Amino acid sequence: MHPDLTLSHAQALDAADPLASLREQFHLPCDIIYLDGNSLGASPKATAARVAHTLSHEWAKDLIGSWNTAGWFDMPLSVGDKIARVIGAQPGQVVAADTTSINLFKVLSAALMLQREQAPQRTRIVSERHNFPTDLYIAQGLCREHGFTLTLVDDGEVLPALGDDVAVLMLTHVNYRTGAMHDMAKTTAAAHACGVLTVWDLAHSAGAVPVELLAHDADFAVGCGYKYLNGGPGAPAFAWVHPRHVDAVWQPLSGWWGHGAPFAFSPDYAPAQGIARYQCGTQPMLSMVALDEGINTFLKAQDWGGMAALRAKSLAMTDLFMALVEPIAQAHDLTIVTPKQHEQRGSQVSIAKDTGAYAIVQALIGRGVIGDFRAGDGSGRFGQDIMRFGFTPLYLRFEDVWHAAQHLQAVMDSGEWQHARFQQRGAVT
Amino acid sequence: MHPDLTLSHAQALDAADPLASLREQFHLPCDIIYLDGNSLGASPKATAARVAHTLSHEWAKDLIGSWNTAGWFDMPLSVGDKIARVIGAQPGQVVAADTTSINLFKVLSAALMLQREQAPQRTRIVSERHNFPTDLYIAQGLCREHGFTLTLVDDGEVLPALGDDVAVLMLTHVNYRTGAMHDMAKTTAAAHACGVLTVWDLAHSAGAVPVELLAHDADFAVGCGYKYLNGGPGAPAFAWVHPRHVDAVWQPLSGWWGHGAPFAFSPDYAPAQGIARYQCGTQPMLSMVALDEGINTFLKAQDWGGMAALRAKSLAMTDLFMALVEPIAQAHDLTIVTPKQHEQRGSQVSIAKDTGAYAIVQALIGRGVIGDFRAGDGSGRFGQDIMRFGFTPLYLRFEDVWHAAQHLQAVMDSGEWQHARFQQRGAVT
Repeated sequence: MHPDLTLSHAQALDAADPLASLREQFHLPCDIIYLDGNSLGASPKATAARVAHTLSHEWAKDLIGSWNTAGWFDMPLSVGDKIARVIGAQPGQVVAADTTSINLFKVLSAALMLQREQAPQRTRIVSERHNFPTDLYIAQGLCREHGFTLTLVDDGEVLPALGDDVAVLMLTHVNYRTGAMHDMAKTTAAAHACGVLTVWDLAHSAGAVPVELLAHDADFAVGCGYKYLNGGPGAPAFAWVHPRHVDAVWQPLSGWWGHGAPFAFSPDYAPAQGIARYQCGTQPMLSMVALDEGINTFLKAQDWGGMAALRAKSLAMTDLFMALVEPIAQAHDLTIVTPKQHEQRGSQVSIAKDTGAYAIVQALIGRGVIGDFRAGDGSGRFGQDIMRFGFTPLYLRFEDVWHAAQHLQAVMDSGEWQHARFQQRGAVT
Repeated sequence: MHPDLTLSHAQALDAADPLASLREQFHLPCDIIYLDGNSLGASPKATAARVAHTLSHEWAKDLIGSWNTAGWFDMPLSVGDKIARVIGAQPGQVVAADTTSINLFKVLSAALMLQREQAPQRTRIVSERHNFPTDLYIAQGLCREHGFTLTLVDDGEVLPALGDDVAVLMLTHVNYRTGAMHDMAKTTAAAHACGVLTVWDLAHSAGAVPVELLAHDADFAVGCGYKYLNGGPGAPAFAWVHPRHVDAVWQPLSGWWGHGAPFAFSPDYAPAQGIARYQCGTQPMLSMVALDEGINTFLKAQDWGGMAALRAKSLAMTDLFMALVEPIAQAHDLTIVTPKQHEQRGSQVSIAKDTGAYAIVQALIGRGVIGDFRAGDGSGRFGQDIMRFGFTPLYLRFEDVWHAAQHLQAVMDSGEWQHARFQQRGAVT
């Protein structure tokens, strides 16, 4: 049956949306359609007051005492417990701290140490060529230091690359460029069958799609606080380690916050038990309380069906966008590179164009439709220049989806993108 | 000549203090005397409005665009340029990012890599037993991974420990426990004469004492944003590398913010030139703008004599406090462990007591005099339990010094410390 692609149908979907009221929790400028929550989530209205309280009372008034009385010192673990609810983990298994890159360094180091002890013939890390670059860079740094090699394969071609000499399969669950999603359960099982440990980057899946780290038997995971969790620009990231591994090794960023007794001031490092050892140094509390508020805001969706309802809305929105874009794509040589199958994609739609993608994104931004551009490297079918459109079900409306597609059509039909002003430099993932 | 230890003399010093007006820039509760700025600096009044602007305009309204338009992406380097003015470095040599522990990991790794290439027989790191523990923990982690050994010597006994097998001398410029300060020029020269590279932790000296990294020919340095720079709880830290070393190695936290072209999204890491390569991942912007405002506030002292005036006031305050405490110490078995010689100390006064130091600090806190307690490890003459009193010349008055000493006298003479309530858990450095 042909889908109903009218504005009035989109508005009817909004009227029936059980999550619709959640939009009111966010600041969203009335003159834009924000399709970049996959890069930087919108600001919850509650965050400003929360941060102001931390500034005016916890810091300015209570000063040093707030490390205890305001719970600052425990926040990496208390915020981690909330993130655990979003990624299929248990309380006490997640720490919120540092950056995604640094947390990846910690967990990838730990995975490599484990393999070096137990299976020293395993000397390769396998990942995808179009994985988010910082993941590859961190792996390259570790390879240089520890004699491993990094094998990059085309997106989706990882399983044939596994074998007796592979130590770690390092993947981003939902690809930052295409929005393609791995089957975590199947991929992890295949890796384990080959004796390979899995490291998952959840940057584009935590809060965007259902994640079940324990149920899918993952080994290590990291993720981002400032995308679908709305923690604010550069919010602390997170790390999770399966309980079977968590106490097995020192992660190498062995700072005092990961010590078993940080206030004993012993000269000898002795790591804490559990995920606390994946901490290193003092965390940025203004950004940390904003992350806490972002997650509190996210978790309000629990009252309206939670992640299942968010996922259903996300898929309905991306289905609608793809259906609306399809005829535009045919007319203007665009390619929707995000998989059409629900189980194979996250919460974004990416469109490739050989030339002009940057200018089209600029023209859309000029019209208030905020997506972003990711340069390709020209390599193979995943190396094209890409336009990304993220759909955050917490705060977007079906009506926004409809209008965004209309703007794309107008930009393409009019040719206005060919004289759009170029302003955008790349922005953060 | 016996010093004048009267309250009226202290008040006269305040009346003559060229820096006195700077106190008005800070929130300081009227019912406390805050002697813990060496642990967490006070809140500049300008910070709340600055952070609120970042929340309400840069994030909530301009969203992803603020990475460019608000300068977020460049802040690690722009804030670093301001820190450079405080530590005797040049613009473009300092990066503000991550935590002190993580920055130490970066620069100590780099120093070890350099030596491994140029002098592989150098396999030892030398440091002090009572260096801040996280520095030792980070070094221990690197030793485990790379086959170096960590040699710990008594405080101040480092030079005899240097030799042909030493790669790196890693020191905290001003000791967190005792406030004792190394002679950076002399120590660095002695290290270099032995072929040893120096790594300096400036946590208790940046903003507290004059630091001249370039003039004193240091090799690597890190430091803290939330103590004397008043950047807020857990503010980003900083790293500096001498230009002769900065492009010599990849530091191992090779994340995308340290890439030469982060928005090219190349799968291959190629480090930026200069200190930019000491970045790793996305920085916490709410905490970063607060750090920027803290340093802006600090730099206002430039109009009133700058670091020279701050240092003169700091020494006068700590001189006064030691003179006031001297008779109390004699009467009650306290030991002032901070060196009396000006050139040998930072901006704090530490007092040791074999038993009861924790209770005395609690009794003082009960009276509104906020210092802190650091447990000893019982080892040698530097291993006692310690009470720390930090004197921040930006916002403290000589009158505060006088009253703090009076409270200490009252606590000791009355014995009230022996039934003080125990509330404090250790707080952050």
